[in-house]
Amino acid sequence: MENYNKLVEHYKTISNFSHLSAICGWDAAAMMPSGGNQARSEAMAQLSLHIHQLSTAPQLAEWFEQAQSDELDPSQQASLGEMKRQWQLNTVVPEELVKAKSLAGSKCEHAWRTQRGDNDWAGFCKNFEEVVKLSQEEAQIRAEQSGLTPYDAMLDIYEPGVNSQQLDSIFGDLVSWLPELTQQVIEKQKTESVYTTEESYSTKDQNELGLEVMKLLQFDFDHGRLDISSHPFCGGVPQDVRITTRYDESDFVQSLMGIVHETGHARYEQGLPKRWAGLPVGQARSMGIHESQSLFFEMQLGRSQPFIANLAPLAQKHFSTNDAKVFEANNLQKIYTRVQPGYIRVDADELTYPAHVILRYEIERDLMNGKISYKDIPELWNLKMQQYLGLTTQDNFKDGCMQDIHWTDGAFGYFPSYTLGAMYAAQFMAAMRKEVDVDDALSSLELAPVFNWLSDNIWSKASTLATGELVKQATGSGLDAKYFRAHLESRYL
Amino acid sequence: MENYNKLVEHYKTISNFSHLSAICGWDAAAMMPSGGNQARSEAMAQLSLHIHQLSTAPQLAEWFEQAQSDELDPSQQASLGEMKRQWQLNTVVPEELVKAKSLAGSKCEHAWRTQRGDNDWAGFCKNFEEVVKLSQEEAQIRAEQSGLTPYDAMLDIYEPGVNSQQLDSIFGDLVSWLPELTQQVIEKQKTESVYTTEESYSTKDQNELGLEVMKLLQFDFDHGRLDISSHPFCGGVPQDVRITTRYDESDFVQSLMGIVHETGHARYEQGLPKRWAGLPVGQARSMGIHESQSLFFEMQLGRSQPFIANLAPLAQKHFSTNDAKVFEANNLQKIYTRVQPGYIRVDADELTYPAHVILRYEIERDLMNGKISYKDIPELWNLKMQQYLGLTTQDNFKDGCMQDIHWTDGAFGYFPSYTLGAMYAAQFMAAMRKEVDVDDALSSLELAPVFNWLSDNIWSKASTLATGELVKQATGSGLDAKYFRAHLESRYL
Repeated sequence: MENYNKLVEHYKTISNFSHLSAICGWDAAAMMPSGGNQARSEAMAQLSLHIHQLSTAPQLAEWFEQAQSDELDPSQQASLGEMKRQWQLNTVVPEELVKAKSLAGSKCEHAWRTQRGDNDWAGFCKNFEEVVKLSQEEAQIRAEQSGLTPYDAMLDIYEPGVNSQQLDSIFGDLVSWLPELTQQVIEKQKTESVYTTEESYSTKDQNELGLEVMKLLQFDFDHGRLDISSHPFCGGVPQDVRITTRYDESDFVQSLMGIVHETGHARYEQGLPKRWAGLPVGQARSMGIHESQSLFFEMQLGRSQPFIANLAPLAQKHFSTNDAKVFEANNLQKIYTRVQPGYIRVDADELTYPAHVILRYEIERDLMNGKISYKDIPELWNLKMQQYLGLTTQDNFKDGCMQDIHWTDGAFGYFPSYTLGAMYAAQFMAAMRKEVDVDDALSSLELAPVFNWLSDNIWSKASTLATGELVKQATGSGLDAKYFRAHLESRYL
Repeated sequence: MENYNKLVEHYKTISNFSHLSAICGWDAAAMMPSGGNQARSEAMAQLSLHIHQLSTAPQLAEWFEQAQSDELDPSQQASLGEMKRQWQLNTVVPEELVKAKSLAGSKCEHAWRTQRGDNDWAGFCKNFEEVVKLSQEEAQIRAEQSGLTPYDAMLDIYEPGVNSQQLDSIFGDLVSWLPELTQQVIEKQKTESVYTTEESYSTKDQNELGLEVMKLLQFDFDHGRLDISSHPFCGGVPQDVRITTRYDESDFVQSLMGIVHETGHARYEQGLPKRWAGLPVGQARSMGIHESQSLFFEMQLGRSQPFIANLAPLAQKHFSTNDAKVFEANNLQKIYTRVQPGYIRVDADELTYPAHVILRYEIERDLMNGKISYKDIPELWNLKMQQYLGLTTQDNFKDGCMQDIHWTDGAFGYFPSYTLGAMYAAQFMAAMRKEVDVDDALSSLELAPVFNWLSDNIWSKASTLATGELVKQATGSGLDAKYFRAHLESRYL
C-alpha cells in the first residue's frame, strides 16, 4: 500500500492545484473585470504549467511499477488504472508539441473572434492550418502509442473506450431516420400555434425563478452557486460547483432551460463519491456521460410534460406579466418542444441537434485520419447541412464551419460527446422507468427516486468503470440508439 | 544582468501563484458557499506551501551573490534589495517552527471563535500559551539574525525600518495629550445634538451609493470590484483589486465610510507602478503606509466638511427616506465626527482609536521581549483602558484582550501600523496642502490634484524607498505626531 499511497498523495496535490485553477477560471468568466485579464492569463498559464509538470512527473512511471506489487482491492486497482490512463494521455505528447499547439490554438482563437463576424474564412485559414497540422501530429503520436486510428486516439481523450467504428454505426443509424422524423414533426407542428409575447422579463425575476427551479432539482447550495457569464458553463469543484447562465430580458426561455441543463452537470459533480475526492477515479467518467446528465435534466426531466406543468405556475409567479397565456402549461410545452432546423448548433432543438454533431464528427474524423484537407471543410459542411437539415451554407462561413470554438482550439474528438450524451440520457431514462414511476415523481415533484437512481447508477460510480461498462451495468445493454429514437418519437410525433 | 534576470523570473513566478492565492482568498470570503470550505482550505494550504518553497528556494542565496556582480541601475538595486529582504524574512525561521506556529495559530483561532462569546479566558489560554511561546521563539530567532530586540524584529515584518524606540517616543507623545483632548471634545459634543432616525436602508441602495462614491474617488472598475463579506477587506492583485464591505440595513453610516476606507487601500494597489509588477520592489511599502492611504481616504478626505457636503445630497438621492434631516450636511458631518470611548477597537472613532492601538503595542512589546507573561495581559489591559479611555475591562475578556484575531494568530507587531497609518495620513495631508488646494478639490469634486500628489509621492514609489525615507521625501521630515495633533484639534475642537 505504501507505493499506492505515494501516488494518492501526489494526485491529491494535483487536485489541490486543479481546484485553484477551476475557481480562478470561473472567476475569470463570471467576476473578473476585463482589465484583470492579462495578469490572470499569466497566472493561469503558470498554474497550468505547474499542473502539467506534476501530471507528467518522471517518477510516476516508477511509482506505477512499484504499486503493482501492493495488495490493492478492486477499487484501488481501478484508481491506479485511472491514474495511469491520465498519465499516459498527458505524457505521450512531447512537451514542445503541447506548447506549440496551445500557442497556435490561442492565436487562432484570438483572431477568430473577429474573423467569424467578418465571414473571413481565408484569414481564418492562415492560423487554422497550423492548428490542424499540429493536431494531426498529436493524433498520429497518440495513435502510435495506443494502436488506435489517429482520430480514435483523439476521441479517447474525451470519451475513453468509444471508437469511430461504433460511432459510424450509431450515428449511421441516427441519420437513417432522423431527417425524415424531423420533416414529419415540422409538418405536424405547422398545424399547431405557439403563443408568444413581446413582454420583457427582468434579470432579477429570471434569476429568482432559476434559483427556485435549481432547488426543485435539489442543487446543493451549500456546495455551489449560480452566477452570470457570457457563455454558460458548469465549473468549480465537486465540493463547490459553480454554474452560470446568461439572461436575455426579451426571452426567458433559453436561460431557464439552460439553468436546468447546467444543474444536471452540477448534480453529477456534487454526487461524485467523497471517498475518492481528488483522485482520477473519483472524477466524472467522460464528456459524454457528463452531457448525459445535463441532457437528462434538460431533455428527459425539464422538457417533459409533467415537469413543465409544474414549471408553468412558477414562471407565472415570478414574472409580473400582463399576459399569462404564454405561461399556460400547454403553451410552454409547445415552446420547449418546437422544432426548427437552423444553422447554429448551440441554438438547435433536441431533434435537429444530432445532425449538427454528426456532420462535425464525419468531417473531423476524416480530417484527423488524413483523408481530407482543412480546405475541404466548407464544401463538406455545405453538402452535409443540405443532406441532414436541408440548409445551405455556401459562402456562409460564420454560420457554418466557423461557428464553434472547438476546432479553433484544436479540440478534435470532442463533438461526439454531445450526441452520445443525448442517447445515454434516453437510455438511462428507459432503464429508470423500469424501477421508478418517473411521471409520478415529476408530477408530484417528489424527485428523490429519480436522483437516487442516477446516484446509484451513475454519480457514485465516478470513473470506476469504463464508459461502456457503466452504461451496461446501469441499463442492461450497451449504447443503443433505439431508446433515443423511441424517446423522440414519443415526444414529437 | 543575467543573474538579476533569473531572479526577476523567479519572483514573477511567485507573484503568479500569489495572484491565484489572492483571488481564491477573496472568493472564500466573498463568494464561496460554506460547504466548500474544507476542500478550499486544503487547496490553499497546498498553494501556501508551494509559495513558501519558492520563496525560500536554496538556490536564491547563490543567485543573490551572483547578482551583485551585475551592473544594476539604482531601481534594479532597490529591486534586488527588496528580494533579499523578503527572502531573509522568509528563510530565517526554521520550517518546523513556521509550521508549528501556523498550526497553533489555527487551533487557537478556531477555539477562540466560540471562546470569545463565552468570555472564556482560561480556555483560551490553553491554546494561546503555545502561540505566545512559539511567537517568542520566532522573535528570538529574528532578533539574533537582525541584531534587533525580539519585538522590533517582529515589527520589522510589518513596518520595516520602524523600531520601538521611535514608537515609544511617538506613542508617548500621543498619550501625553490625547486623553485630555478626547475629554475636551466629549464635553464640547455634549452641547451638540445629532439627529438620527429608525429608518432602514436597503442593501441595494447602500451598494449603489457606495459604487457612486467609489467612482468619485476614481476607483478603477476596469481593474477591480466591490462585493460583500462579513469582514471588510481589500484583496486581489494590483491589476484586479477586490474590496468588500458589509451592509447593515438599519445603519448606512459604517458601510459607506468603510467603502471609502477600502477604496483608499485599493487606489494604492491600483496605483503601484506597472513596470515593477510582480516584483517585491513593486509592492506596497508596508502595512503602515497601506493604512495611511485607507485612512487618508477615510479620515482626511471622506470625513472632511467639504466632502461630506457633497456626500449628503448623494445619500439623499439614493435612500428613499421620509425624513431627510439625517442627510443634511451638518448633521452627517456630526455623525461622522462623533467621539465616544468604547471597548472595541474596530468600532472606535478617529480620536479614541490610537488608545486602543497604543495599549496593545505596549503589551505586545513587553510580551515579545519577555518582560511580562501572557497571564498578565488581562490586568494590564484593564489598567491601560482605565488610564487611556476611562473604561474598565475587569473580568470582561471578550470586550477586552480577547476581541482581536491578531494575537490569536501570532501576529505580534502588527497593531502599530494602524496608528502609524493615521499619523502618516495627517502628515501627508499637511504636505499636500502646501501644493494643492485640497478644500477646493473636495468642494468641486475635482480630485485629480489630490490623487496626483498621492501617486507621485506614495503610490508610484512602491517599495523603492524605506518607510522613513518615503515619508521624508513626501513631506520634508520624518514622522512627526504634531501633524496628527493639529489635524485632530482642527477637526474636533
